[in-house]
Amino acid sequence: MSVRLTASFIVTTLALVHQGSAYAAPNQEPIQPIQAARVSNPAAVELGKALFFDPRLSKSGFISCNSCHNLSMGGTDNLKTSIGHGWQQGPINAPTVLNSRFNLAQFWDGRAADLKAQAGGPIANPGEMAFSHELAVTTLKSMPGYVGAFRKAYGSDEINTDRITSAIAAFEETLVTPNSRFDQWLKGNKKALTTNELAGYKLFKDSGCVACHNGPAVGGNSYQKMGVVEAYKASSPAEGRVAVTGKDADRFNFKVPTLRNVELTYPYFHDGAANTLPEAVDTMGRVQLGRKFTADENTKIVAFLKTLTGDQPSFKMPILPPSADATPRPQPFN
Amino acid sequence: MSVRLTASFIVTTLALVHQGSAYAAPNQEPIQPIQAARVSNPAAVELGKALFFDPRLSKSGFISCNSCHNLSMGGTDNLKTSIGHGWQQGPINAPTVLNSRFNLAQFWDGRAADLKAQAGGPIANPGEMAFSHELAVTTLKSMPGYVGAFRKAYGSDEINTDRITSAIAAFEETLVTPNSRFDQWLKGNKKALTTNELAGYKLFKDSGCVACHNGPAVGGNSYQKMGVVEAYKASSPAEGRVAVTGKDADRFNFKVPTLRNVELTYPYFHDGAANTLPEAVDTMGRVQLGRKFTADENTKIVAFLKTLTGDQPSFKMPILPPSADATPRPQPFN
Repeated sequence: MSVRLTASFIVTTLALVHQGSAYAAPNQEPIQPIQAARVSNPAAVELGKALFFDPRLSKSGFISCNSCHNLSMGGTDNLKTSIGHGWQQGPINAPTVLNSRFNLAQFWDGRAADLKAQAGGPIANPGEMAFSHELAVTTLKSMPGYVGAFRKAYGSDEINTDRITSAIAAFEETLVTPNSRFDQWLKGNKKALTTNELAGYKLFKDSGCVACHNGPAVGGNSYQKMGVVEAYKASSPAEGRVAVTGKDADRFNFKVPTLRNVELTYPYFHDGAANTLPEAVDTMGRVQLGRKFTADENTKIVAFLKTLTGDQPSFKMPILPPSADATPRPQPFN
Repeated sequence: MSVRLTASFIVTTLALVHQGSAYAAPNQEPIQPIQAARVSNPAAVELGKALFFDPRLSKSGFISCNSCHNLSMGGTDNLKTSIGHGWQQGPINAPTVLNSRFNLAQFWDGRAADLKAQAGGPIANPGEMAFSHELAVTTLKSMPGYVGAFRKAYGSDEINTDRITSAIAAFEETLVTPNSRFDQWLKGNKKALTTNELAGYKLFKDSGCVACHNGPAVGGNSYQKMGVVEAYKASSPAEGRVAVTGKDADRFNFKVPTLRNVELTYPYFHDGAANTLPEAVDTMGRVQLGRKFTADENTKIVAFLKTLTGDQPSFKMPILPPSADATPRPQPFN
């Protein structure tokens, strides 16, 4: 223990010595490395994974959590706005589920306090999965494979909404992406980034991006107005945080999205209006910072942003328990 | 080699001795075990896996091969008929992709000679993925990650429809399900099946089911009329093989579906009209064999059918290459 304190003391001292230099020591940085997930209930995680991939939690039997938070594609659907039951067009861009455990709350307007509260939303939303919590429980109860999985995770055969959403959240808690090149750099590997990428990071800090995009998730920890300096003309009708607080001051305040894996989570913004990173960086500079980045600056910031892509969650495709004769059948067309 | 010949001779001899007994030796059975997949080009299989899961081969960016041939759910969507672009209702039940390599041809009417020819169909079908082969090529060419994967699989950067469908087929060739309890029994483990399941198998053979459902895939190797003894009132407009041959005699002739993993591939028949195995067995008995199975017989046959569930393909969820700035964007709503 004394050794560790000493080491920490040395690092701090070195950091103070280097203060003001372009590349301060990691523990002085406004962004912290992503830690690997710790799993306390592996059976709940396995159950949650199955539920996350199971389209039988939707009325159609076609839409699962993974449909819009596709873990093959950065935990998003890469669509401007999502496709819901009956091909309904969603009002807002689907945020990534990756590293969502670091968000101060869930959804763009923060209306769900945590991942468990979030998980219940889409299942019962008539514009998304269009199911009901009651039907979800009935469906899962009918399948011996699921009954066994709930027993393994929670010690009894009981299946209820609380357990369903807890299991999905337990799985989502594991969806972190450590070991990005930026994190390798933060941890001391100075060769992990190129000069260009480091210059982009300096610009990212010096221009003020980091005021909102900080912490381990490089965002996700505050609400901010979309259009601080210049009004943002959104193609989405969503008004943000005001829908939760009722306060006029919260109009167009949205949760700052994580920039982790931002290379994978296009298109950008709550309305999905920016297709590419250069476009997103340009817009952010103008409407949030009142700054027009030059082409060279834009290129450097984008180069830095691409170093935030971490190890993607790696696991075997779950094999879902088959429906039983008594399992309610999907109703995609009525 | 001489040792193997000798062993084979002994088995044959033993089988002849037991001829006429209820449970003949494996090499006398009309069903053969599923063999594990042999992979000749692993890079093509990996590429094909990515393509199989990539919704960017559809106009919407939402539908992949796996949407309707979901490998978490027996290689099917478990829907009566599938959901296509814009939530269009498909005309026919999606057949399982599992063990499809054993089919004499692909699609219910056999209009594709092989898996490669099949793979091109849904991509360009306006009622399914609603894309075009040209756009698929343009999309994949725009992504460095895919260009590298094609190079690794085929030795050059060229991306064309032939290579796309070859890779998907190479992946699908690996989607076999060996080691079912029935195959364990076929290979000599007499404890692998219960008395009830064996009685079901005997009924399956003695009633004539096996006339069409035979071979390693327990089907997939012939076209047969749906409604031999009694007309079958289908809810699907599909007329089967006549659409390919133009011959009136082929009306309502469909490819006999595999019964491998039939526990997972509900609902049943080309129109997906039978939700459960007891219902499917009852209907088949009546319309194909002119036989009304008793409840006990039905139960036994269903018990046998459930022994055909093999080891499901087991692999890590592919992580797809991100779109580049130049990649055409999905058009889900226009």
